Amino acid sequence: MNFKAILYILGWVLNIEGIFLILPFIVSVIYNEPQGKAFIIMAGICLLIGSLIVIKKPKNMNFFAREGFAIASTSWIVLSVFGCLPFVINGDIPTFTDALFETVSGFTTTGASILSDVEALSHASLFWRSFTHWIGGMGVLVFLLALIPITGGTHMHIMRAESPGPSVDKLMPKVRQTAAMLYFIYITLTILEIIFLLAGKMPVFDALTISFGTAGTGGFGIKNSSMADYTPYIQWVVGIFMMLFGINFSFYFLLIMRRFSQTIRFEEVRNYLLIIISAVVIIMVSLFTSGSLLDMNFSEKLRHTFFQVSSIITTTGFSTLDYDTQWPQIACTVLIGLMFIGACAGSTGGGIKVSRISIMAKTIKKELNLFFHPKRVIKIKSEHKAVQHEVIRSINVFFIAYMIVFAVSVLIISADGHDFTTNFTAVAATINNIGPGLSKAGPTENFGFFSHLSKYVMIFDMLAGRLEIYPMLILFVPEFWKGLISPNSVIRG
Amino acid sequence: MNFKAILYILGWVLNIEGIFLILPFIVSVIYNEPQGKAFIIMAGICLLIGSLIVIKKPKNMNFFAREGFAIASTSWIVLSVFGCLPFVINGDIPTFTDALFETVSGFTTTGASILSDVEALSHASLFWRSFTHWIGGMGVLVFLLALIPITGGTHMHIMRAESPGPSVDKLMPKVRQTAAMLYFIYITLTILEIIFLLAGKMPVFDALTISFGTAGTGGFGIKNSSMADYTPYIQWVVGIFMMLFGINFSFYFLLIMRRFSQTIRFEEVRNYLLIIISAVVIIMVSLFTSGSLLDMNFSEKLRHTFFQVSSIITTTGFSTLDYDTQWPQIACTVLIGLMFIGACAGSTGGGIKVSRISIMAKTIKKELNLFFHPKRVIKIKSEHKAVQHEVIRSINVFFIAYMIVFAVSVLIISADGHDFTTNFTAVAATINNIGPGLSKAGPTENFGFFSHLSKYVMIFDMLAGRLEIYPMLILFVPEFWKGLISPNSVIRG
Repeated sequence: MNFKAILYILGWVLNIEGIFLILPFIVSVIYNEPQGKAFIIMAGICLLIGSLIVIKKPKNMNFFAREGFAIASTSWIVLSVFGCLPFVINGDIPTFTDALFETVSGFTTTGASILSDVEALSHASLFWRSFTHWIGGMGVLVFLLALIPITGGTHMHIMRAESPGPSVDKLMPKVRQTAAMLYFIYITLTILEIIFLLAGKMPVFDALTISFGTAGTGGFGIKNSSMADYTPYIQWVVGIFMMLFGINFSFYFLLIMRRFSQTIRFEEVRNYLLIIISAVVIIMVSLFTSGSLLDMNFSEKLRHTFFQVSSIITTTGFSTLDYDTQWPQIACTVLIGLMFIGACAGSTGGGIKVSRISIMAKTIKKELNLFFHPKRVIKIKSEHKAVQHEVIRSINVFFIAYMIVFAVSVLIISADGHDFTTNFTAVAATINNIGPGLSKAGPTENFGFFSHLSKYVMIFDMLAGRLEIYPMLILFVPEFWKGLISPNSVIRG
Repeated sequence: MNFKAILYILGWVLNIEGIFLILPFIVSVIYNEPQGKAFIIMAGICLLIGSLIVIKKPKNMNFFAREGFAIASTSWIVLSVFGCLPFVINGDIPTFTDALFETVSGFTTTGASILSDVEALSHASLFWRSFTHWIGGMGVLVFLLALIPITGGTHMHIMRAESPGPSVDKLMPKVRQTAAMLYFIYITLTILEIIFLLAGKMPVFDALTISFGTAGTGGFGIKNSSMADYTPYIQWVVGIFMMLFGINFSFYFLLIMRRFSQTIRFEEVRNYLLIIISAVVIIMVSLFTSGSLLDMNFSEKLRHTFFQVSSIITTTGFSTLDYDTQWPQIACTVLIGLMFIGACAGSTGGGIKVSRISIMAKTIKKELNLFFHPKRVIKIKSEHKAVQHEVIRSINVFFIAYMIVFAVSVLIISADGHDFTTNFTAVAATINNIGPGLSKAGPTENFGFFSHLSKYVMIFDMLAGRLEIYPMLILFVPEFWKGLISPNSVIRG
């Protein structure tokens, strides 16, 4: 393990965080809030430590897959620990565990909150809270790759470790160009949403924070009622943009490149839209047959249904109503299903990802067909190309690791004594980076009541969900730590 | 698809069922019950149809894997449909759907019942209900293979399709000898349990039916209170025998062959016992720390804990107390975990199976190690032998198919409007062939309140669980039916 290179990258991560931390300070100056000081203090500390680390660039900047994973997990942990301290310092979230939970929830774009009264927070803290979504959505390492030339390194390993999905599309010849292109699309879409929201007469602060939350598919709101009190126009805009941020960014790249025929044939995006339409139809039918929400007309029901579906499948977690108590059971079960499916690979959304699910379904179809044609060579195709054997194997193993982490988490959290629905959906909502679950973890509740142990389990789950399991699991491999204790013994493949 | 050979086997299945159906008639004669007539009528019908079919043996008795699966699924459906009719005829369970649910639950050794008052049933019906567990436990096709010489066929495909676990141990050189050996062990253990129960002064009828339920790891009781009202001695005997029937039968074969060193190194059995001990310890600790069941002393708590753990991990489903309401949440969550793990492969128990879980865990360990040693060739070993690539792939695909069937089932059942815990654990309890779940599907409840649609979903799940998914999924492959419509077009591999 090349620990010197990892440390060097961590230094840059701290520098970037230091610069980002200046933004909430500016917000506090505008609103004349004393809570802003904590952010400028932490900005200084991050920049100081960061610059000390990056003074000397290590000669050996070779990365393998394991370094990529190690960089991803350590960067995100460092990012979260430093990013949570302003909340502790300015007293907005005085307990360290709670502040860490909230910050990890922010960076991993989960949106699960321990706060019962969001509106009590200072504007600076609210801004930072939502901005962590924006940073975490596309990824701080991707941002770093786009900005800083790290010659000699195999950047693809870093990108792959941080980007969601079974495989990463290399849009441009160079990793740096790809990272820059991704951020270009990301920033453009974010600005578009801000403009649309401002056009709906939303206050500037709200438009910025809500757009950050949508872009990262995070879900931190700035009101205790989440999105329920905004106008139908704003709810539609946010609903549609959540859906857009859940689309594979390669799709937008193809659009920009005017390769329209390829966009139409984009299998994952088609499946993703198909799942959204199916879910909306099933829930709408269940609402009408069960006689729920009788006071709403068709278009109101449609707006709320589309909003919730778009929010959950993209793992954003905004809500416009309390579906847990107001919707029939089958509609809630559909939402739980969407939690697991998740958005497209290569988007800012979480979950298992549509492309993984569809490759898994194709694997089963292939297996069944093999019984009828044992000698036929059947290749699994995705996006009209044969899927590599390696990718299929890693998807299978990913899914199993995911389920094991899931089961162990539910088991540990159940020690708190809450009901099964709470435990199950709390873990589902954190490992899939959604935010709200059902029952005591429902959309109008918060995660504050869980024990410290449970919160740390869910902190792990949120990171494991965002980084797609491996980077976090690698921390449990003894060889990882062996290298750290005697850092000169670089393990060679 | 060789439909003639499949039909021929189905004929023999009906003949065997016809003979078995005579047993409850004998019981009814002893107890002088009118309900027995239905059984002798159905026995006659089965034997008539069966013998007409087997008069002419098809020349081509070649089986491939697909025929093995097709035989397994069709036999079990035929077995259940004919086996449920006596209940409908004699009026003990007048509704066809309910009678089918109960019979499938019996044959698949699930033990989930739609009856609210078991004790109202005639002795003949109670006997048949428990006896279906015994038949289904080791499998009717294995029984058939042991009895009837089907020359020319590749019997291993039939055996593999019906036997639980990722791969089937060929204990003896010939399939017929292996099948006979399995039934020899099965009958011996059953008789041993009957003797132990009779020694505890249990009535003969109770000893027989409870032993059938234990042997098949089924769980149909003959009392409304399941096993709660029996003496501690009887509860210990049943608890221990449930555990014994969950052990891989290859272990007993090695014992009989006096290959003791191999029995000690039997990895799956060791893991299985380790899981049982761990579960008992966790639940005991949770009982004492949560202050549950304060009126019980240590040995009573231990007995109930061991009984429930043994009952759930072997997917039997007997209960000695209402854990759903009397145990803390973490203890119930441990039970839900055990539901999925299940017993050993090659036993009569259900679930995913200990060996599959341990191979899946090893796959993840291997994958993580590969990041540190990318060029090393790591072989996954099970029982001290390298696991074939084919087996690993099929385990991965099995697990994914299993989860998809699970998710779709929960979704459909949720249309009934019951709470998530009920739906989730009802599906978990049926697909893993356990019996009781939690909440409305808890150990003191029954499955009668579900809609017909939900009952058919769970009938599918029980069969899919017992036959390990593929034989049931194959019914959804269009090519399966294409062959049936034009039976002369035998598909060649």
